[in-house]
Amino acid sequence: MKVSIIITLKKDVLDPQGKVIHQALEGMGFNNISEVRQGKYFEIDIKETETKRAKDKVEEMCKKLLANLVIENYEIIDAQ
Amino acid sequence: MKVSIIITLKKDVLDPQGKVIHQALEGMGFNNISEVRQGKYFEIDIKETETKRAKDKVEEMCKKLLANLVIENYEIIDAQ
Repeated sequence: MKVSIIITLKKDVLDPQGKVIHQALEGMGFNNISEVRQGKYFEIDIKETETKRAKDKVEEMCKKLLANLVIENYEIIDAQ
Repeated sequence: MKVSIIITLKKDVLDPQGKVIHQALEGMGFNNISEVRQGKYFEIDIKETETKRAKDKVEEMCKKLLANLVIENYEIIDAQ
């Protein structure tokens, strides 16, 4: 089963990388952007057939390794 | 309007970063993983109220800057 996760910086955490991309896009003529925020995306292929169990396992991985919960949020967006 | 994009490596492109994460997870005892692939996630807040126009603009940004179409795919997953 493939589980997809998005990890984003929390709302109040500054995102300098997003800011640079914003500036680059503006420099290319895209001048109606308010904000750009960057995050990470993971696709984990797990040997598990039951959705609930796969999601639980992946959530554990997020907590233990993939996300820094002090400054980041994780969200499981898909499992199939 | 906030548009969310996922950029992933194409299927046949090696993903060493994903491989390292896979190994790290295995080292922590998660031993039922087949594969880990990493991608990027962007959230672009654009001054545009019409969904179709916002998506078109963001698609143009993907093609011109955000994604390297030789090795990457982009997907607009949400616009609201």
